[in-house]
Amino acid sequence: MDGFSHSTDVRVRFAETDAQGIAHHASFVVWLEVARVAYLDEHAGGYRSIRDRGLEALTTEVHLRYHRAASFDDLLTVWTRCTGLRGARFRYEYRIVRGNELVAEGYTSHATVHRGTYHPTRVPDWLADAIARAESQEA
Amino acid sequence: MDGFSHSTDVRVRFAETDAQGIAHHASFVVWLEVARVAYLDEHAGGYRSIRDRGLEALTTEVHLRYHRAASFDDLLTVWTRCTGLRGARFRYEYRIVRGNELVAEGYTSHATVHRGTYHPTRVPDWLADAIARAESQEA
Amino acid sequence: MDGFSHSTDVRVRFAETDAQGIAHHASFVVWLEVARVAYLDEHAGGYRSIRDRGLEALTTEVHLRYHRAASFDDLLTVWTRCTGLRGARFRYEYRIVRGNELVAEGYTSHATVHRGTYHPTRVPDWLADAIARAESQEA
Amino acid sequence: MDGFSHSTDVRVRFAETDAQGIAHHASFVVWLEVARVAYLDEHAGGYRSIRDRGLEALTTEVHLRYHRAASFDDLLTVWTRCTGLRGARFRYEYRIVRGNELVAEGYTSHATVHRGTYHPTRVPDWLADAIARAESQEA
Repeated sequence: MDGFSHSTDVRVRFAETDAQGIAHHASFVVWLEVARVAYLDEHAGGYRSIRDRGLEALTTEVHLRYHRAASFDDLLTVWTRCTGLRGARFRYEYRIVRGNELVAEGYTSHATVHRGTYHPTRVPDWLADAIARAESQEA
Repeated sequence: MDGFSHSTDVRVRFAETDAQGIAHHASFVVWLEVARVAYLDEHAGGYRSIRDRGLEALTTEVHLRYHRAASFDDLLTVWTRCTGLRGARFRYEYRIVRGNELVAEGYTSHATVHRGTYHPTRVPDWLADAIARAESQEA
Repeated sequence: MDGFSHSTDVRVRFAETDAQGIAHHASFVVWLEVARVAYLDEHAGGYRSIRDRGLEALTTEVHLRYHRAASFDDLLTVWTRCTGLRGARFRYEYRIVRGNELVAEGYTSHATVHRGTYHPTRVPDWLADAIARAESQEA
Repeated sequence: MDGFSHSTDVRVRFAETDAQGIAHHASFVVWLEVARVAYLDEHAGGYRSIRDRGLEALTTEVHLRYHRAASFDDLLTVWTRCTGLRGARFRYEYRIVRGNELVAEGYTSHATVHRGTYHPTRVPDWLADAIARAESQEA
């Protein structure tokens, strides 16, 4: 997908549906996280490599716009890119598609903090560089 | 809280925390829903009364901004108001506080649809009136 | 309820339902945890008081038998008792009712461990005593 | 694995962890369901093929014994077999492993019901046959 450097597939679990007969809207928030973890796996040694250095990436903002319902067992693709890295902050943008249909789109914002204290700390250079490389490959 | 017509208390469940030691950001999305259900309980006969008429309220947009982490067992208050009702669409705004601290704020957008077909349909008058009454009481 | 020393009310959240139109069976596992936390709140200073001493209670076994479906917005009561405390281990038993109807019943087993290392450690005396008092009051 | 006809891989999501730093015990219940869906995908046209015929498989019992903690990003394999099909009832057994380590084991019981009424109905022959074939292949 134009401008997106990474994709992850997610299949809708039965536990993720609700009594409206479709995937619950909070399930999408979890899928965005699954996509971020896959993004970091591919480009920066995984989220584990961030945690292993005593850091966490807190989520400071979530936005999702739902265009179509998703159903049990649907195969969705989450397109993901990382943007706007500055200081302790960075942001991901997403498009969730089912085949050619746009199901949802959104973004999340994050801040790197020290584990334990939750004090903000600059995104480490190795991670900023890995993200810059990932996103420039795409362009 | 100024401008908010309704509040609901939520206690953070252990299952809602994650390995960062705090409430997972997707848990907040569920709490907003709990608050909407409580709002409709107080003002419009409950979400059940909507479903009993063959309607569903789909969630079309979610936005959350997280200001402070919430921990296991924290008592949070979700302040809620309903705004911008027009045609099939309406919107809720939220402030989540812990005592005097603002923990998160956000909004969600919704569309009323026919159950089964998911076709949009005007918010029924009884519901629009109930919301108008609820929000004018507040003012 | 005969032989049960504690009860907690839970209202079924919309997010806890699934496309079968009923509460998802995994939701009950979370409600048992909510009931344990409420039990400890009443009798032993809360689960926080265990964590504050550097301990965790791991769940080592879960059993649930489902007798009736639960629906969105149902008010359920989880009856809870703590039994079989020995060494590092203890067990809870549950009955989940809706009015006079038995909805589900089950038990969970637990082991106290040191936080961080996850090494088993005897249930501390203050907690064993608090549980013994709670359960003898009931009898 | 001896006696098990099917396996499914699951990677522990961050949202599935809790403040103990490990996968929450209720997450395992969802993974068993993911494994059942994968089992039916391989052997019986998927759970969708059951629902498309107006049936649902209710879960009537869950049992899990946890031997080791699972952590974020762990790759787990859920070994699954279907046993004890009789009338409207059937049962699955599971072993969850991480490499050579047994992480958890359990079983779930189910009943086929008519969608909408939830009345029990015999497991249809095509499904019973598909399961019999799957399990005899294994032996």
